[in-house]
Amino acid sequence: MAVSPFDSPLWSGLYADPELGRLFGDSAEIRAMLMVEGALARVQGDLGLIPQDAAKAIQRGALEVAIDPAALSAGTARAGVPVGALVEAFRKALPDPSVGAWVHWGTTTQDIMDTALVLRLRRVLEIMDARLVTLIAHLADRAEEHRNTPMAARTRHQNATPTTLGAKIAAWGMPLIRHRARLAELRPRLLVVSLGGASGTLSAMQGQGQAVAEGLARALDLGAPEIPWHSTRDGITELAGWAALVTGSLGKMGADLLELGATDLAEVSAGAGGGSSTMPHKRNPVGAETLVQLATANAHAVGAMHSAMLHAQERDGAAWGLEWLTLPQMLCAAGRALSVGADLAATMQADVAAMRRAFDGHQGVMFAESCTFALSAHMPRTDAAALVMAACATALRDNRPLRAVLCDMTDAPVDWAHAFDPLAQAGEAPAFADRFVRAARA
Amino acid sequence: MAVSPFDSPLWSGLYADPELGRLFGDSAEIRAMLMVEGALARVQGDLGLIPQDAAKAIQRGALEVAIDPAALSAGTARAGVPVGALVEAFRKALPDPSVGAWVHWGTTTQDIMDTALVLRLRRVLEIMDARLVTLIAHLADRAEEHRNTPMAARTRHQNATPTTLGAKIAAWGMPLIRHRARLAELRPRLLVVSLGGASGTLSAMQGQGQAVAEGLARALDLGAPEIPWHSTRDGITELAGWAALVTGSLGKMGADLLELGATDLAEVSAGAGGGSSTMPHKRNPVGAETLVQLATANAHAVGAMHSAMLHAQERDGAAWGLEWLTLPQMLCAAGRALSVGADLAATMQADVAAMRRAFDGHQGVMFAESCTFALSAHMPRTDAAALVMAACATALRDNRPLRAVLCDMTDAPVDWAHAFDPLAQAGEAPAFADRFVRAARA
Amino acid sequence: MAVSPFDSPLWSGLYADPELGRLFGDSAEIRAMLMVEGALARVQGDLGLIPQDAAKAIQRGALEVAIDPAALSAGTARAGVPVGALVEAFRKALPDPSVGAWVHWGTTTQDIMDTALVLRLRRVLEIMDARLVTLIAHLADRAEEHRNTPMAARTRHQNATPTTLGAKIAAWGMPLIRHRARLAELRPRLLVVSLGGASGTLSAMQGQGQAVAEGLARALDLGAPEIPWHSTRDGITELAGWAALVTGSLGKMGADLLELGATDLAEVSAGAGGGSSTMPHKRNPVGAETLVQLATANAHAVGAMHSAMLHAQERDGAAWGLEWLTLPQMLCAAGRALSVGADLAATMQADVAAMRRAFDGHQGVMFAESCTFALSAHMPRTDAAALVMAACATALRDNRPLRAVLCDMTDAPVDWAHAFDPLAQAGEAPAFADRFVRAARA
Amino acid sequence: MAVSPFDSPLWSGLYADPELGRLFGDSAEIRAMLMVEGALARVQGDLGLIPQDAAKAIQRGALEVAIDPAALSAGTARAGVPVGALVEAFRKALPDPSVGAWVHWGTTTQDIMDTALVLRLRRVLEIMDARLVTLIAHLADRAEEHRNTPMAARTRHQNATPTTLGAKIAAWGMPLIRHRARLAELRPRLLVVSLGGASGTLSAMQGQGQAVAEGLARALDLGAPEIPWHSTRDGITELAGWAALVTGSLGKMGADLLELGATDLAEVSAGAGGGSSTMPHKRNPVGAETLVQLATANAHAVGAMHSAMLHAQERDGAAWGLEWLTLPQMLCAAGRALSVGADLAATMQADVAAMRRAFDGHQGVMFAESCTFALSAHMPRTDAAALVMAACATALRDNRPLRAVLCDMTDAPVDWAHAFDPLAQAGEAPAFADRFVRAARA
Repeated sequence: MAVSPFDSPLWSGLYADPELGRLFGDSAEIRAMLMVEGALARVQGDLGLIPQDAAKAIQRGALEVAIDPAALSAGTARAGVPVGALVEAFRKALPDPSVGAWVHWGTTTQDIMDTALVLRLRRVLEIMDARLVTLIAHLADRAEEHRNTPMAARTRHQNATPTTLGAKIAAWGMPLIRHRARLAELRPRLLVVSLGGASGTLSAMQGQGQAVAEGLARALDLGAPEIPWHSTRDGITELAGWAALVTGSLGKMGADLLELGATDLAEVSAGAGGGSSTMPHKRNPVGAETLVQLATANAHAVGAMHSAMLHAQERDGAAWGLEWLTLPQMLCAAGRALSVGADLAATMQADVAAMRRAFDGHQGVMFAESCTFALSAHMPRTDAAALVMAACATALRDNRPLRAVLCDMTDAPVDWAHAFDPLAQAGEAPAFADRFVRAARA
Repeated sequence: MAVSPFDSPLWSGLYADPELGRLFGDSAEIRAMLMVEGALARVQGDLGLIPQDAAKAIQRGALEVAIDPAALSAGTARAGVPVGALVEAFRKALPDPSVGAWVHWGTTTQDIMDTALVLRLRRVLEIMDARLVTLIAHLADRAEEHRNTPMAARTRHQNATPTTLGAKIAAWGMPLIRHRARLAELRPRLLVVSLGGASGTLSAMQGQGQAVAEGLARALDLGAPEIPWHSTRDGITELAGWAALVTGSLGKMGADLLELGATDLAEVSAGAGGGSSTMPHKRNPVGAETLVQLATANAHAVGAMHSAMLHAQERDGAAWGLEWLTLPQMLCAAGRALSVGADLAATMQADVAAMRRAFDGHQGVMFAESCTFALSAHMPRTDAAALVMAACATALRDNRPLRAVLCDMTDAPVDWAHAFDPLAQAGEAPAFADRFVRAARA
Repeated sequence: MAVSPFDSPLWSGLYADPELGRLFGDSAEIRAMLMVEGALARVQGDLGLIPQDAAKAIQRGALEVAIDPAALSAGTARAGVPVGALVEAFRKALPDPSVGAWVHWGTTTQDIMDTALVLRLRRVLEIMDARLVTLIAHLADRAEEHRNTPMAARTRHQNATPTTLGAKIAAWGMPLIRHRARLAELRPRLLVVSLGGASGTLSAMQGQGQAVAEGLARALDLGAPEIPWHSTRDGITELAGWAALVTGSLGKMGADLLELGATDLAEVSAGAGGGSSTMPHKRNPVGAETLVQLATANAHAVGAMHSAMLHAQERDGAAWGLEWLTLPQMLCAAGRALSVGADLAATMQADVAAMRRAFDGHQGVMFAESCTFALSAHMPRTDAAALVMAACATALRDNRPLRAVLCDMTDAPVDWAHAFDPLAQAGEAPAFADRFVRAARA
Repeated sequence: MAVSPFDSPLWSGLYADPELGRLFGDSAEIRAMLMVEGALARVQGDLGLIPQDAAKAIQRGALEVAIDPAALSAGTARAGVPVGALVEAFRKALPDPSVGAWVHWGTTTQDIMDTALVLRLRRVLEIMDARLVTLIAHLADRAEEHRNTPMAARTRHQNATPTTLGAKIAAWGMPLIRHRARLAELRPRLLVVSLGGASGTLSAMQGQGQAVAEGLARALDLGAPEIPWHSTRDGITELAGWAALVTGSLGKMGADLLELGATDLAEVSAGAGGGSSTMPHKRNPVGAETLVQLATANAHAVGAMHSAMLHAQERDGAAWGLEWLTLPQMLCAAGRALSVGADLAATMQADVAAMRRAFDGHQGVMFAESCTFALSAHMPRTDAAALVMAACATALRDNRPLRAVLCDMTDAPVDWAHAFDPLAQAGEAPAFADRFVRAARA
């Protein structure tokens, strides 16, 4: 049973991200929380806040004990968070019950849950970054392959002037390189231990609060907070924004592919494509559709994380819980989009003949700009523009190629073959493809 | 493993809605789709579009066959929708494979999925309406109980003049009565068979498309569409908006309860409350927090459904899929909020002594308005207002009760006991409570 | 100077809605608030709550006095709402200052502002409904004109089977008819006087609060509230949802037109179209773009209104103000979309020759479904489907028309001309167009 | 007339941001676009792409010519963008019309508009950063002032253990320091010239496209793009996310202040406060309300920018226009929030006596945690916790101070004065205030 398609066996082939989804599963959450409790005890033992023997027993227990998520359900419902029930179950499961009193010493639910989240986010970011690398590499290969493959640039749903598929792919890929830079920048702000105790004052740590925080950070290989971040959620919201930037960039690629792969154009195909239940000739663009879905879903979800920044006073159960309802799905959406994007990038195929059609269509008026510029060498630019505009009108009205109409209308010594050569008129498109390829491989 | 807390065993005590969640589970989805295929076959058999024997076998099979959701995952991934894989599995599972050819005759994935969704939504709406009835009844009991329980009205986070708890509860409950009316209005627009065939033209139904649609509607006890609604999603988006209205109203109740139950006020408590892991005296307002969470989540999610209205041409896989990622969670949020709200309404308790504190606090300046109005019987209103404003300033500066200050400042024959009597100054508050109670019990 | 394009002279040709925009302007807001104060005084005079002479002077003054919006800016900033400054300025502007004390008697800012809003919303809804009527009429004309104009249905960005332009237009129009029904349903919930006094208890009305509310409702031709709605914003949020449904439906039409009008298809054009600054042949689809912009803007804005439902206690300045930042722009977006939609519907032109291309393209494989169904009369359906699928593959591989390939592969006595006739294969599309036309003209 | 309160004279005292609003006004937009056209011409003149005389005349004209925004309205409506009409008007306004042909040479609307936007965004970011500096400085002063001012920490709307106001202020301020770091990081990604020509290929620049882009970047003191960013909107969306982070952090401060300034608590006041129209004693928390409004508005608006990332192909008029409807208001909201926040920070006042009430309230059970920890020195922690929990129950039931109850229940030699001393129990709160102050002044 699954309310979210991300959790559904039926829909798993489309939406499930086994690698990331596992990190947000109950077992991983419990495991991470226990790991934090264990590390905390160890640090507190080393600092003499709790007995060393108890500390060691707790840390060992945290690694060994297995706790059934469903058994914590009732306690979670009572408290609104699972930590209390977990600590109780953990204490009971420890071989020596007398050490149980030292579990969770001086800390609070939010310390445990948020640090356990951050521990898993570290892995999430590694996975995301690796997927970005893979995706960028595929796109670089495609951009190189198609640096000189001319196609119609389409602006405002109108065919404009020629570009190359390589330049288009560069526009898909360049933001991804920037997303890697953004990820590197936000990482140290995000991957920080949460430790504040009941009220964010570490009051139960007997003056050693900061030492515990720093020790815990070292033990878990995370950053230490300057001050507790119980109620300041900018780091986690920044991550949500990043995830939505990633899905947004991939959504643009998906939306472009939907249009380019539409039956009427059929210029670029990517992915396996799904058959129709009634139309044998159809190949549905499942991957591209998924990218658009996930992008739009995240574009709406991201605002919930921003709303959750209005976190009341020292801890806000309502605002905090809104994060749980939002962030894991946003990250799984981003992770899934990266995987789907990589698959599309790896399998993308161009139909060069189909791409030609746009140049020949509409009597070649797509070359109006290049004709105008070519003519501008021989007459004032406004005259050139007026002449070409008139020629376009004639060409479309009489169903005659623009080139022929122009030859009739002017004897300016223009190199028409050049003016109507898509690649020649694609300007810097190949160079832009190169720039992306270089940046991608840097 | 669960990416959404709605699906997590660990979090189930807080978020799971077993009754609704089940309706959105894989099994229920498959069951509903088979029911639609079965009913469709039966109708087509009756109309002579497919052989009667096959029709009966298909309908029987649709009731009997059990199909494993996970087994459809690969096919779902290929097609982007599970219907093709389901039909294939269903055909194989039929005792007589020769009738399989008549399964899914002339229809399309979207017909099956959307009709199967609507079938389950019918039940969802029944459940929701029943929960609204329960919740409204609890609130009516509370409003009646507290029609004369005076408390401070709080406007713009300032104590204003007295109201009664009954009037406040009436404001929580009255919108819920309107939500029932809205539900009744949207129901016939929503609970409509989807049947359009491949392109929304019923082209394979041999001219009997409309008869099939009407027969299917009768068979499933749904409405028949005027025209197919493959690409017009206003009905389903209206439902999402309704769900967000419901959670919004309950979120307001939850937010009010959070403030009223805060330690500093402690005027109203509701729900069991969760203990703190470190602070033994704390009782966390889990239910009220949950209402606010779900309301804000839905306030953001609803926009995704509106975005999904931009459904391209005759079918849009991206826009359609966005609904799957959004609607079930919105409805489960609304259903869960209704349950939590009913629990809070049933257990709500007022601390009358605590409520008094607001009246006595700040030297009683909360009665400034009633004093002004009382004095206005004896002097121009602006004079009265000026006098009271001066008295308030004096009272607060000198830490003397406003009533005493006023008695010093004027000998106007005002009935001060009445002017400072919270219930007497609560105006129509009891009457408003009554109005709600009457409307709730109508 | 304008932060919002809705207010900018530069952008006014695109976004300004003079008729609606005026209703949300400062002057209209002040005028409406004065009208409410005037009507309230009159009702209170009739009921003996304030002197009749004062009441009449106030009502007259409310009609005659002119107050400069900018002069209220400082007072608005101090109070967070303009009512206090307005009342003060109004009192000063009254010929007889002694009656000023009776202005705003027993009421509160929110009563005045919300009732003044509702007064203008009544006119907004009339305008919207009239525009819906106009738009629906244009679409009905177009649907009738094109009931038999065959074109490719496009599902999941793939050409599916034939439909007609009339059926597509019916799908654009049918939701608009439902939107009129929704508008009629929400109207009585929305167009209701707000009157509660300081705390929503009408405490200053000396027991005549409900009589005043009913009198005010009669005077303003609005409904009377069952209980005050200061803090229950479901009516106004429902309106926002409705506005987003309207822009959503028009956004779908706009998105469809963007694709259909793209240079590569050029099947349908609508609106004047804007020229490019550099490409003389381009005609940018400004109107369709605007519809998509406004739809997506409203799809995001609507959630802010749902968030504003979490209206704290008896009045919440933060939640209330969020409405001001959101609702007027949502309504202007909907109003503008209706105007733009009507213009597109009125000017829409189909290029029948261009539409044919989709049928001939890809060797006619678009008729695969009709061939399968036609063959099913002569062989088992699965055999027919397999044969057609094979034929499609051959046709595409060998660049031969599907019809020719099928004739080679089978001698089943199929009426191939019929199977490949777009209109014949458009099923109920013409009938669906008729249904919309009938419903539109009912 | 104003649809958005940001543009309304009536509402200007609350919402207008003269400094930022001006930058988004029509005149500033036209001025910036002309500046770009002028700089472009100059660069092209230097590179020999256009005649030097014309280049100089154009650049001079761009500085001198005044163009009426309203006069461009019709052209803007036709094209969907104002650039065409502006260029035409500019050409006409040039003293020597013959140079007009060289205006806008080889560029496109989007180059001009986006570069003109970025030019103004540079100034916007400077203003924002300066305001952050001011705000942080005020907060640092307050944090220093109140490093030792004890108050109740409130977690999940329950009083928890003591903290200090200084620590709370540190939590408001620390994210703002991070926002400055984020701003510095995003700046080079955002402040980049847009130059791509008609299709993003610079095809009309005769092979000197990149030189022109670099020259233009130098002339305008912006970065040069690696490849054109017509269709890759990550930079601008990142900025929107940043604005929403800023308003989110300030919204948290505003929401905290609303609660702390509520009549019942009245612990902290800030800002001038607005009077009520009917209740003389009320001081409405206008500034704090505004912060919450702007935060929630931006939390919803930010998603629209993410949706606009799905920018079709080489230019998407619908997606691009969605930015215009969204970004300026988001930035003005952030700018206004920074100003309001600075005013609140500068005027914030604490009522120490009021803050004490929370400690004494509820029989002092707020010190349960410190008592538990104190007792843990003398007995097992679970015993201590059980004892304190029992004592709390007794204290609340019998209305006796917890301290007295504990003294009755145990003769453990606990330093009760210390256990019940708010500042002594505030843990690291003063140290956290110090850390913020140091970071703020670094």
